Amino acid sequence: MIIDRLIDRIIELKNPTVVGLDPRIDYIPEDITKDAQNRYGNTSIAVKYALLAYNRGIIDAICDVVPAVKPQVAFYEQFGAEGMDAYFQTVSYAKAAGLIVIGDIKRSDIASTAEAYSDAHIGETDVFGQKMAFSDTDFITINPFLGADSIEPFLKNCKDFDKGLFILVKTSNKGSGDFQDLIVDGKHLYEICGEYVEKWGADFRGQHGYSSIGAVVGATHPEVAAKLRAQMPHTFFLVPGYGAQGGGAADIAASFDKNGLGAIVNNSRGIIAAYKTEKYKGMTYAEAARAAALDMKEDLGQAL
Amino acid sequence: MIIDRLIDRIIELKNPTVVGLDPRIDYIPEDITKDAQNRYGNTSIAVKYALLAYNRGIIDAICDVVPAVKPQVAFYEQFGAEGMDAYFQTVSYAKAAGLIVIGDIKRSDIASTAEAYSDAHIGETDVFGQKMAFSDTDFITINPFLGADSIEPFLKNCKDFDKGLFILVKTSNKGSGDFQDLIVDGKHLYEICGEYVEKWGADFRGQHGYSSIGAVVGATHPEVAAKLRAQMPHTFFLVPGYGAQGGGAADIAASFDKNGLGAIVNNSRGIIAAYKTEKYKGMTYAEAARAAALDMKEDLGQAL
Repeated sequence: MIIDRLIDRIIELKNPTVVGLDPRIDYIPEDITKDAQNRYGNTSIAVKYALLAYNRGIIDAICDVVPAVKPQVAFYEQFGAEGMDAYFQTVSYAKAAGLIVIGDIKRSDIASTAEAYSDAHIGETDVFGQKMAFSDTDFITINPFLGADSIEPFLKNCKDFDKGLFILVKTSNKGSGDFQDLIVDGKHLYEICGEYVEKWGADFRGQHGYSSIGAVVGATHPEVAAKLRAQMPHTFFLVPGYGAQGGGAADIAASFDKNGLGAIVNNSRGIIAAYKTEKYKGMTYAEAARAAALDMKEDLGQAL
Repeated sequence: MIIDRLIDRIIELKNPTVVGLDPRIDYIPEDITKDAQNRYGNTSIAVKYALLAYNRGIIDAICDVVPAVKPQVAFYEQFGAEGMDAYFQTVSYAKAAGLIVIGDIKRSDIASTAEAYSDAHIGETDVFGQKMAFSDTDFITINPFLGADSIEPFLKNCKDFDKGLFILVKTSNKGSGDFQDLIVDGKHLYEICGEYVEKWGADFRGQHGYSSIGAVVGATHPEVAAKLRAQMPHTFFLVPGYGAQGGGAADIAASFDKNGLGAIVNNSRGIIAAYKTEKYKGMTYAEAARAAALDMKEDLGQAL
């Protein structure tokens, strides 16, 4: 089961880190962007070339240090169809490098439409009678706002293709409380979401006791994370918000169980753009990404 | 202001219908799919060719009957990067035909990421220092679950580029109540969302009194629609769920104001695949789409 593969790899590498592949053009070293522009001009094809060259360098540098990467599709989609091609190619390259890939897509729609998203990212689409997989992401993030029937097409593909989900429960942003913290019959909305996620995940539990149907729980709310950790004993957490968004290693400890498992912590900018900071000055972007990933492993190891 | 352009066009055509461009391969006539396969084989390029040929036929047939179209991106995204190219080309073709285009993308993320989605669909992305618009949709749908700060990047582009939003308030699916109907301090969550949407839209009101920041309110819950119509006097509604999903013309009347304005009703399958039904037998798919759009205009006209 995919959740077991993720947890086994976390244990093997002693590192519950996922590297967010959220490339921005100003993160990409000038030798790559200049090469891309020389080849393809100021076009989205040049951007695709640059994004892929940059991502390949990071993936090669970190693939034996971290278990997983999480490309954020918005940073590819913003460059149109060529950007989406870069997204799908990044997923393939990362998988070929042995990484588990979490597609951060946060899709959601009514069931008949959700099925198309599910097929696109964790299933297969019918192309003139032939089934084709356009992405082969191991996990995707999804938004639960439309309710249980909107989740079912994703659960079906998780079963058929051994895939997993991370469903938004409590996001890392400041405004997350506007809706997620509202109180219904004495419970926060995030607790109610959490109950649904535990239930949806019941048929997907692996040998470590965790389900392939996980939850997104931000590092920026450690008290909420601790409460949800206790209430959702079978739900693995994807934890954004470490580093640039303000969450420290001590904050993320709340998302883990007593065995130091139960969560994977995302870091994007702090790893992929580490070479721009004083600490990693003089290194190439790939060397700095590797060094930052190793430093994060140590930071998390001390906190857990 | 974009909401005025939409309302003016609804008044001019006497037709508050938006045609959902949600193509499925089995809706596309065989002469188009065979031609595509002959040219490009069983590939996503052939799918793109077929989707575009099919959509062009529909757009040409309905562009003087309805004010707007709503491509649902999931039905393009499911074919990978080529599918996304078909989505963006469909948006361009529909705009060139004089239609207002509502991109049904239901995106949402934390602010720094939402900005990338916003730039992709209703703004401009920086490509090596040059601003490029990869899509030029007039409106997009978005999901509010992440809270006010996640909406701000979209509002900013609405202001800068004269665009609009339809924010999910009460969706048309059966499971919509799982979260949206929960009661917080005596109010349904959808009412609280509605209050936010009215507030977010305050700076975007046009000459008809409606804001470019609208709401999605399903036709399948007429009693909810009536309540929200009263509570959200400046918010224009995008109403899915008419036809195939079970909402009739009488149900949608609740979404309109006393002047017969205030909402636009979506129909996808009932128009784009009308030629497959007994009623429009013998017509081409384009002729049937036009006839079905005219029939829907009459149906809505009688109900309002």
